[in-house]
Amino acid sequence: MLGLIVQKFGGSSVASMDKIKNVAARVKAERDRGNQVVVVVSAMGDTTDELIEMAQKAGRNLSDREMDALLATGEQQSAALLALTLQNSGYDAISLTGWQAGISTRGTYSRAQISRIEPDRVVKELDAGKVVVIAGFQGINPDGDITTLGRGGSDTTAVALAAVLDASMCDIFTDVNGVYTADPRLVTNARKLAQVSYDEMLELASLGAVVLQPRAVELAKLYGVRVQVRSSFSLEKGTIILEVEEMETTGIITGVAHDRNVAKLALFDVPDRPGIARTVFKSLASQDINVDMIVQSANRNEHNDISFTITRNDLPRALKVVERVYQEIGAGGFTHGENVAKVSIVGAGMQSNPGVAADMFEALADEDINIEMISTSEIKVSCVVQSQDIERAVQILHQKFKLDQV
Amino acid sequence: MLGLIVQKFGGSSVASMDKIKNVAARVKAERDRGNQVVVVVSAMGDTTDELIEMAQKAGRNLSDREMDALLATGEQQSAALLALTLQNSGYDAISLTGWQAGISTRGTYSRAQISRIEPDRVVKELDAGKVVVIAGFQGINPDGDITTLGRGGSDTTAVALAAVLDASMCDIFTDVNGVYTADPRLVTNARKLAQVSYDEMLELASLGAVVLQPRAVELAKLYGVRVQVRSSFSLEKGTIILEVEEMETTGIITGVAHDRNVAKLALFDVPDRPGIARTVFKSLASQDINVDMIVQSANRNEHNDISFTITRNDLPRALKVVERVYQEIGAGGFTHGENVAKVSIVGAGMQSNPGVAADMFEALADEDINIEMISTSEIKVSCVVQSQDIERAVQILHQKFKLDQV
Repeated sequence: MLGLIVQKFGGSSVASMDKIKNVAARVKAERDRGNQVVVVVSAMGDTTDELIEMAQKAGRNLSDREMDALLATGEQQSAALLALTLQNSGYDAISLTGWQAGISTRGTYSRAQISRIEPDRVVKELDAGKVVVIAGFQGINPDGDITTLGRGGSDTTAVALAAVLDASMCDIFTDVNGVYTADPRLVTNARKLAQVSYDEMLELASLGAVVLQPRAVELAKLYGVRVQVRSSFSLEKGTIILEVEEMETTGIITGVAHDRNVAKLALFDVPDRPGIARTVFKSLASQDINVDMIVQSANRNEHNDISFTITRNDLPRALKVVERVYQEIGAGGFTHGENVAKVSIVGAGMQSNPGVAADMFEALADEDINIEMISTSEIKVSCVVQSQDIERAVQILHQKFKLDQV
Repeated sequence: MLGLIVQKFGGSSVASMDKIKNVAARVKAERDRGNQVVVVVSAMGDTTDELIEMAQKAGRNLSDREMDALLATGEQQSAALLALTLQNSGYDAISLTGWQAGISTRGTYSRAQISRIEPDRVVKELDAGKVVVIAGFQGINPDGDITTLGRGGSDTTAVALAAVLDASMCDIFTDVNGVYTADPRLVTNARKLAQVSYDEMLELASLGAVVLQPRAVELAKLYGVRVQVRSSFSLEKGTIILEVEEMETTGIITGVAHDRNVAKLALFDVPDRPGIARTVFKSLASQDINVDMIVQSANRNEHNDISFTITRNDLPRALKVVERVYQEIGAGGFTHGENVAKVSIVGAGMQSNPGVAADMFEALADEDINIEMISTSEIKVSCVVQSQDIERAVQILHQKFKLDQV
């Protein structure tokens, strides 16, 4: 045996029996290379939506426990169908549900977190020479109830299994063939990255370049799991996510990300008193509204202006909160805008190159693109710009940092 | 609490969300009477067939283990959907899979048998005031794998749960409203029986009057579970199945059953030697062919004629066996016939009334209906007749034994 590979296929990769046969071919290729293979699958294409639609006919009150019990059947079905397909091409295979694979969870239904994996059964079946197909997105909680892991849960299942089984690689098959230096639809000479670090991937994922759930990346980083994002439909290599120390080369900037799903809110003339920010952002958090960038600046009246961004569909709910809160905190007023978008440069090499942010601002200024907000982290600089400028911003930053060149 | 009721609803009763709402109404009515309720459901209408159809696209070799894992999702879904429906009408409810309900099985996949039920979780949820909805037809084997119980498995699940929970009644909801003295489509004045004994029900079930799986009846008899066969679509009382000692009245004859799904085979001039019958019937059994009636008679050449009946769709396979075997045993030849059917009278009171069989033969003879084979048990007499005579045979026997009168 060369090693153990975990492969994860999403819902669109297993949407029909024809597609499941395509998945089986990928599994068999890995097996033929002499590797042990664990496969994690999502539910077939529309299964989840169809089940939700049926449940909605029961009424409005859809308890998370029962929805989890209902939806978990989708992955159980695709896992069994893939096992049957593999068996029919002469490969020994077995499907396991989340609880059969020893996946324990904690936390609330519908967005539970994996707390522990006891892989005895998985190891036993692998040792018996079988491909082990595991229903993703699910586990069992301490009450013995079936739980689902929430959005992107199958990615997390795959990475967690790869960690506990000490897999040599966790291949995440998607409809893109890797992580690019920028969105290829905007930048024609965007380049597929051979490698990207966990931290860069986390930034890229949270900045809108969603090819992998941030939770799965965090888990991979924690356990040092090598993850490869690659295409279900092509044999070429994808992008490998690993520790920055393991990377062959690291440029200063790895990629340019953008996010159009941004709305901006600003409270102005906010009294400069302790506890003001807490009041505002606790009120938003209590409504499950995620705040992304926050900028506070002192204005000429010795009052502050507080600006922040949220995802666009949270705007109506956020406005309700702000309408209630702004008088309470004695703010002069508030504004909001939907015609904004966010452009970010990401790179692990940024930490040792202090001039990068200035280069970014200069490149945008040279093109007359106005920067409305700025936020930085150790390996990222993000700017909020007008929506109509976003494509141009991505293109000139890709060019400025020569991302088309290795 | 008045008591505990187990209700079982089959696939056609939960075929759509509208029908599930109808089921919920039946559950609520029982709950409103102050009873604790355990509900056992089958998969929604066509779900099982749809899953089988998908699996068949994987290839011809459909391993029973994976088919069980696949098909068990159907009941898991309908259980969750019923729980959601009950919750939305203000009734606390919870769905449990077979393994969550503590149902252990033994034996082969696809037709496993319940070996043990540990109802701790079910009792806990009942005590918490919940309606407990359990996925029928399934359990878990000692390997921790999901198993299905085979045909009529949900009936067996319901009866086994009723036994272990000491339920006061196990209501089996079907598309007929009870057990009749004869098929009402053939006999216009057939009467619905208020009560029938376990043994009579076993005979009726195995004689073609299939409203309940024989295994479920056997289990009910073993544990003294009162079972009621009743309609999903009407509120009237059904037929209660119980010990003959508990019955209010017992006539000599309870009902007339018939079965058109019969084929007949006869080997003639079979040498009168030990082991001949064994050779014939072991060969048939090895092909999974169930033999029903067997008649052996000595003919004038001091050889035997051996006739037997099987279900009609087993005939081609049975003929292959007989073609191979008849020379091996030195038989003179064989014949077969498909234009036959079986009529039976069933009654617990028959044991103490030796003239009943003679009455049956006389009634048939009076109508010029030729009897081709006869088989008797303690509470049943069956005759094979020509297919074209079957309706008339049922009608005159119903009349002869005055089954339209209580």
